Amino acid sequence: MKLYELVGRDESQGFSPFVWRIRMALAHKGLKAELVPLHFTQIADGLHFADSKTVPVLVDGDNIIKDSWDIACYLEAAYPDKPSIFGGSTAKAQARLLNSQIIKSLLVPFFKAVVADIYELLDDKDQQYFRASREPRLGCTLGETIDARPETLKIIKENLWPYNQCLKDQHYFGGDHPAYSDYILYGTFQWVRATSKIQFLEEDETLYKWRQNMDELFGGLGKSLKSRQ
Amino acid sequence: MKLYELVGRDESQGFSPFVWRIRMALAHKGLKAELVPLHFTQIADGLHFADSKTVPVLVDGDNIIKDSWDIACYLEAAYPDKPSIFGGSTAKAQARLLNSQIIKSLLVPFFKAVVADIYELLDDKDQQYFRASREPRLGCTLGETIDARPETLKIIKENLWPYNQCLKDQHYFGGDHPAYSDYILYGTFQWVRATSKIQFLEEDETLYKWRQNMDELFGGLGKSLKSRQ
Repeated sequence: MKLYELVGRDESQGFSPFVWRIRMALAHKGLKAELVPLHFTQIADGLHFADSKTVPVLVDGDNIIKDSWDIACYLEAAYPDKPSIFGGSTAKAQARLLNSQIIKSLLVPFFKAVVADIYELLDDKDQQYFRASREPRLGCTLGETIDARPETLKIIKENLWPYNQCLKDQHYFGGDHPAYSDYILYGTFQWVRATSKIQFLEEDETLYKWRQNMDELFGGLGKSLKSRQ
Repeated sequence: MKLYELVGRDESQGFSPFVWRIRMALAHKGLKAELVPLHFTQIADGLHFADSKTVPVLVDGDNIIKDSWDIACYLEAAYPDKPSIFGGSTAKAQARLLNSQIIKSLLVPFFKAVVADIYELLDDKDQQYFRASREPRLGCTLGETIDARPETLKIIKENLWPYNQCLKDQHYFGGDHPAYSDYILYGTFQWVRATSKIQFLEEDETLYKWRQNMDELFGGLGKSLKSRQ
């Protein structure tokens, strides 16, 4: 298998939140994939073999699958004898809800918080593309996102509340064992940890302890990331 | 079984969002409970037999259970041979997450939108208690919540986005069949539909069609509500 992922100047450090979901899902199923590093501009030009302008893309023999959610569903269906990543059909449906829920409540504000730091990790060509494509999307300059950080961090703190609250009563979002719902959240934290020095979690938060536990899964796969924090 | 619920002047109309979750969960399991109507002030005085100041409270033989989440867990454990309301341990854990997620993102703004309408449904004694206890919690007067409605409705619309988005790809939040995750959301809509004339859903939203399907479950249990809309 080959998993196409996003990197900056340092090609050994993949930081896409969506790719991290799939790296964890593959490990959950005991599957291995060769990582293929791609730069922003390579992805933006289009991965024509997959008809995709985003990563992850998974190639498994003759099967080419794009979009993290569809890849997770593919892995669950193609490898039914391996441990289930979703934990049943109801849990799968609810993971899809979580997939939607975190877009505006977490991914958008996290992006605003770290976007200027991501820029610093890119090579010249990617920097130019990144600024030109992201500033219109943000509605402000990268520099202005730094000024806005106190407000952005306040929103993130508020929006993390339900996740901290839930983990007071259970080890993982999947219950006693991690599931794809955990990988959705964990991918987000891997992304910001790989790209920014901002500390989003404090030691007394239940999410902090949860992330430590997630770090240890699958032989410390997540911990292999070079954190900037 | 007896299920203690919240009513206004019209004692035949229970409108607690949390009680509606349990009414649906009981029906899902094919169980029946006698409804015991209580007014705000009766609940605030304390249901001493249950050591509770909120509803629902469920009495099942010698078992007295308070808090909707704990009641749902009790029903699942006490009646394992009846259809599962959660759909497995992973789905149950994720339903607990949803339980936390909707507090600030939906219950709080929905409450602000309908609080002045709830007031109108209460008898004199309850009205006095309700205003005195809720205005400090809201940080404004009931009248001011009416002035703030355009802004409140905007927040609700934004916060409903992930739910509408998810239902583009599946019938229920539980997938092909409704689960407790659906009852958590449906209880919220029953509450506002019983108390307010505000239309929170438009016909072209996937949540609108979902609510219609939910209305038909269990012989039209939810539809038995006298909607103000």
